[in-house]
Amino acid sequence: MENKAILLDKRPVGKPTMDDFKFVTEETPAIKDGEFLLKTAYVSVDPYLRGRMMDAKSYVPPFKLNEPMSSGVIAEVIESKHPDFKTGTFVSGYFDWKEYNVSNGKGVAKVDPEAASLTAYLGILGMTGLTAYLGLKNIASPKAGETLVVSGAAGAVGSVVGQIGKIMGCRVIGIAGTDEKVEQLKSKFGFDDAINYKTTDDMSKAIQEAAPNGVDIYFDNVGGEISDAVMFNLNRLARLVVCGSISGYNDTERSVGPRMQWKLIATSSLMKGFTIGDYADDFPQGTEMLTKWLAEEKLVYTETIVHGFDQIPQAFMDLFEGKNDGKMIVKI
Amino acid sequence: MENKAILLDKRPVGKPTMDDFKFVTEETPAIKDGEFLLKTAYVSVDPYLRGRMMDAKSYVPPFKLNEPMSSGVIAEVIESKHPDFKTGTFVSGYFDWKEYNVSNGKGVAKVDPEAASLTAYLGILGMTGLTAYLGLKNIASPKAGETLVVSGAAGAVGSVVGQIGKIMGCRVIGIAGTDEKVEQLKSKFGFDDAINYKTTDDMSKAIQEAAPNGVDIYFDNVGGEISDAVMFNLNRLARLVVCGSISGYNDTERSVGPRMQWKLIATSSLMKGFTIGDYADDFPQGTEMLTKWLAEEKLVYTETIVHGFDQIPQAFMDLFEGKNDGKMIVKI
Repeated sequence: MENKAILLDKRPVGKPTMDDFKFVTEETPAIKDGEFLLKTAYVSVDPYLRGRMMDAKSYVPPFKLNEPMSSGVIAEVIESKHPDFKTGTFVSGYFDWKEYNVSNGKGVAKVDPEAASLTAYLGILGMTGLTAYLGLKNIASPKAGETLVVSGAAGAVGSVVGQIGKIMGCRVIGIAGTDEKVEQLKSKFGFDDAINYKTTDDMSKAIQEAAPNGVDIYFDNVGGEISDAVMFNLNRLARLVVCGSISGYNDTERSVGPRMQWKLIATSSLMKGFTIGDYADDFPQGTEMLTKWLAEEKLVYTETIVHGFDQIPQAFMDLFEGKNDGKMIVKI
Repeated sequence: MENKAILLDKRPVGKPTMDDFKFVTEETPAIKDGEFLLKTAYVSVDPYLRGRMMDAKSYVPPFKLNEPMSSGVIAEVIESKHPDFKTGTFVSGYFDWKEYNVSNGKGVAKVDPEAASLTAYLGILGMTGLTAYLGLKNIASPKAGETLVVSGAAGAVGSVVGQIGKIMGCRVIGIAGTDEKVEQLKSKFGFDDAINYKTTDDMSKAIQEAAPNGVDIYFDNVGGEISDAVMFNLNRLARLVVCGSISGYNDTERSVGPRMQWKLIATSSLMKGFTIGDYADDFPQGTEMLTKWLAEEKLVYTETIVHGFDQIPQAFMDLFEGKNDGKMIVKI
């Protein structure tokens, strides 16, 4: 059986282009005892994958040239020689960008298509939701009445962070890049206020106006100038969850900005890089909370679903243009 | 009785100059019941005072124009109407830059000139030592075998940080601004290695060579380019104690440098602004440890003692030229 795969062909310089990916067709391998064959159903594309396309040490190893890209995937067992994974079972896991993958069950979780939509397991009930919940709870420990600012607020993680902030009793301010997203943050996700950074000249002043009592928590998905502006408004003992830096992922030169050590000292603030893998012990508790809030309709989510295996690279590249509304997923 | 005082005359622009200070002579007030009169013996001058000369919100309120400057002081009770502070007693506290101050005992601690030199209570047994110990212990929690980098390493705080790092079993690397200081860090303070940033072109590479296993803890007294270079060498789960930013205190424009959020994410590192006032509960335990280590000769310290009340402003300004060897103190 033919199996399409997407390899990393070149390490991107600046914005990734189609030229950095290579489509190949290979033979689907036969499964052995203890293995099963998975047909890819949904592929998650995420900003952090940009980092893995570089040959640089980070919290996840880089992709290798001429080898498949990979990411979070929902797939269906279509053939099995494994006692625990019967044909027809749906699973989530990290898999190569291939139409078919072989697994022995390691690092793979069954998902229940009756309990939630399959795509939810890539988003709100998957790494996206866990990143939002565990980053906010474990680093920032929000208290009712505090002010939380979220950048990349209309993105997959940001929109969940804001909603959890509201559940925890915070005043929540979102930063996003279109008027539609700003409107959606307030009307759909329940943010108290939102700012369109693309149409705002003085972001620091805009944040000051939206957060008259100052910023206690900053959940940072973007880095760059937006984060500079937020940092000028920190309160004493503020906590900064540094979760993503999408504004800089395609930079060919290192971005520069005001050094902020003085502000951390002046406010005794804490800044911590967040990596979901550091919190694996908390996944069960996190998933439980997210599932509960979702069932209680305290959490809503949006998805942008693109169709077709061949569209995976383009969907990934569109993340950097902010074309996604919430979680970006490719349906195969 | 005449009493000389030093007021803040102008808010400095860039480096402070003598012109920013004003010397006045006033009448020493008479003490009332419950008060005592103090004759200033030693005055501590510290980089953080530069921040208080600006009209900006920070962890300590700004000095007011036309009012006295103040800092840590050792003084002798020369007249008393307070039952607990007899004439001849020495105390430490925060007092105005005056030859004589009146106190009611609030915020004042007696010091024992037999137990240690009086100046030690401004340095190694005072805020300097507590800053080093509590900053390192409470934010970085050093583990034996870890690599600790200290900037401003030959300064009052830095030299103590490095020695405590050695007591805790770390490999300790200091950064300082003269060859003499570098030599002293190794020979006198027991640092494993030291770097003269003024004669080193590629600081990032120099740190990499001195810390071949990477940097687990960075105790930052200086900010600026030196800190940029250290941050490129962080290990996973590194901790950065942001204690001072002397490199930028006299800046008239905000200093810019590479934004470092990506590195915090890539290494899951933590960066925390340190302010001694946040750790007041730990002062007794900290003082106990410092006194013990000093008695055991596990800690040594250097001081630069300048003579004369009128020299206080100049001694303060000399801090920014690195003219001090350890703690800078003015003997009145």
